[in-house]
Amino acid sequence: PDEAAVEAVRARDGQLTKPAGSLGRLEWLAEWLAAWQGKAPPTVARPLVCVFAASHGVTAKGVSAFPAEVNRQMLETFAAGGGAINQICAANGLGFKVFDLALDLPTGDITEGPAMSEKDAVATMAFGMEAVAGGTDLLGIGEMGIGNTTIAAAIYAALFGGTPAHWVGRGTGVDDAGLARKVAVVEAALAQHAGHLDDPLEVLARLGGRDIAAMAGAILAARAQRVPVVLDGYVATAAAAILFAIHPSTIDHCVAGHLSAEGAHRDVLERLGKIPLLALGMRLGEGSGAALAMSLVKSAAAIHADMATFDQAGVSKREG
Amino acid sequence: PDEAAVEAVRARDGQLTKPAGSLGRLEWLAEWLAAWQGKAPPTVARPLVCVFAASHGVTAKGVSAFPAEVNRQMLETFAAGGGAINQICAANGLGFKVFDLALDLPTGDITEGPAMSEKDAVATMAFGMEAVAGGTDLLGIGEMGIGNTTIAAAIYAALFGGTPAHWVGRGTGVDDAGLARKVAVVEAALAQHAGHLDDPLEVLARLGGRDIAAMAGAILAARAQRVPVVLDGYVATAAAAILFAIHPSTIDHCVAGHLSAEGAHRDVLERLGKIPLLALGMRLGEGSGAALAMSLVKSAAAIHADMATFDQAGVSKREG
Repeated sequence: PDEAAVEAVRARDGQLTKPAGSLGRLEWLAEWLAAWQGKAPPTVARPLVCVFAASHGVTAKGVSAFPAEVNRQMLETFAAGGGAINQICAANGLGFKVFDLALDLPTGDITEGPAMSEKDAVATMAFGMEAVAGGTDLLGIGEMGIGNTTIAAAIYAALFGGTPAHWVGRGTGVDDAGLARKVAVVEAALAQHAGHLDDPLEVLARLGGRDIAAMAGAILAARAQRVPVVLDGYVATAAAAILFAIHPSTIDHCVAGHLSAEGAHRDVLERLGKIPLLALGMRLGEGSGAALAMSLVKSAAAIHADMATFDQAGVSKREG
Repeated sequence: PDEAAVEAVRARDGQLTKPAGSLGRLEWLAEWLAAWQGKAPPTVARPLVCVFAASHGVTAKGVSAFPAEVNRQMLETFAAGGGAINQICAANGLGFKVFDLALDLPTGDITEGPAMSEKDAVATMAFGMEAVAGGTDLLGIGEMGIGNTTIAAAIYAALFGGTPAHWVGRGTGVDDAGLARKVAVVEAALAQHAGHLDDPLEVLARLGGRDIAAMAGAILAARAQRVPVVLDGYVATAAAAILFAIHPSTIDHCVAGHLSAEGAHRDVLERLGKIPLLALGMRLGEGSGAALAMSLVKSAAAIHADMATFDQAGVSKREG
């Protein structure tokens, strides 16, 4: 983090025509942007939401309320501008890109073998790094992939321990039988890969989907390019959790966009030390929670950059 | 509320390309907009933030960290586009209006007599009704007025009982001595007006500022004009509390934009049955929390109106 930029933001903030501290987390967001962009005032001129779409072999085990062919259909919906995320981006002036991660080639069923080879995982991370290649100053990270809440739950269980039932939720809305299948699948995956889950990158290859791998790559590339990151919900956070397990500081440039309705997300965020900006009971994915939160970040940057100072406005400072 | 419009929103929501319920409170916001606009789909095409500015005689008692002349200076700052609220409105495409409520004529010091005559209170409410005169489909309600967190605390104490210390907070940032002065002022005001605080409108006239009265008028006018309302924080909610005390249903068309850092706001919102959309530790006023929340409401309306349906997108519905 660029401490000088943070200091410059604090100094300017103290001169803006408002009581000190009265903008709460918006003031913190301006400092956070400056810390990771390495400039003061920070900007949110080219915000970009990237959605990483992947197919998961584990869907063969009946872990989702929707069939796997929805992946391709949703990608076409995004391309036609018909998704929820399209509307959020349009309403808030956010750029939007979708990454098709070999959607017609599902990863392996994690209950029977590894999702990916290590080579595939690394190549997918590298592909995810393209997220920041076009230039952006605020990156939102999201995903779409039938079955990927099961994948995320398996990753959390492998990284943090605890019972699979603790980490598994209803995802797109499975019934009780579907929930039981998800728990059984995570248990089976952990048993299948037992003894090979100590290295977070091996967890990623064995249990992760291409969406998770690409998001991990995007988060790392953003750090290198001085782009602060807003994470979406339960699944996107799994990519951050992999990096956190490698070293906690790798996600210091990431903020949690929202608290998902997927129950275990709260526990994950607490373990990562992230306080979500929004808590609206959402569980859609597609970067939707990140995108809404990015509109708050955008406002925070605009406030910091464009408000008048006490001197400019001729406003009396506080007494005493 | 228009139940037919709500039903139409629910029916359309069930056809949008997303799992049922996955947008959480955004789905509820679309229903709420439709209920009070009386149309489906609802719109947020002309969102407007109105800030009501007033001077309070009680500032003579040293209840604020800022001098009373800041009122006029802040009004000029708003006019020049230099306030925090100007940036939020610009960044989010929200209209913005300021109402100058006889700023050079402070209301009476509530520790010594009534803030306003009943006639003045009613005239100010009528003036506040002008908020919706220019046409809007979503109204944000905010205020600016040195000393008005003391006024709001006195109103809450009168309406809800309990000790003044429970309702009083640090406002713009008074120190411990200032906080003690605020508590003493609210105690003195309640003693001064004892026996005359049973009728909420009398509470408004005796303890309220013109900002509170005008906001109460704006909320009522919005209801009559089928305009849903987003409330700002601790002080704006006092106007809603007056109406709530007259009859709880009078604020059914209002949503709480945010939870203020002013401690007692949580208790107030619980008493009014309102769950805030945001909780960012803000305590600026100026409609800033309402305006940020309005950007979420705008997204909710855009999602509902413009997302593709399963049929349009050719997306498979859930299995089973």
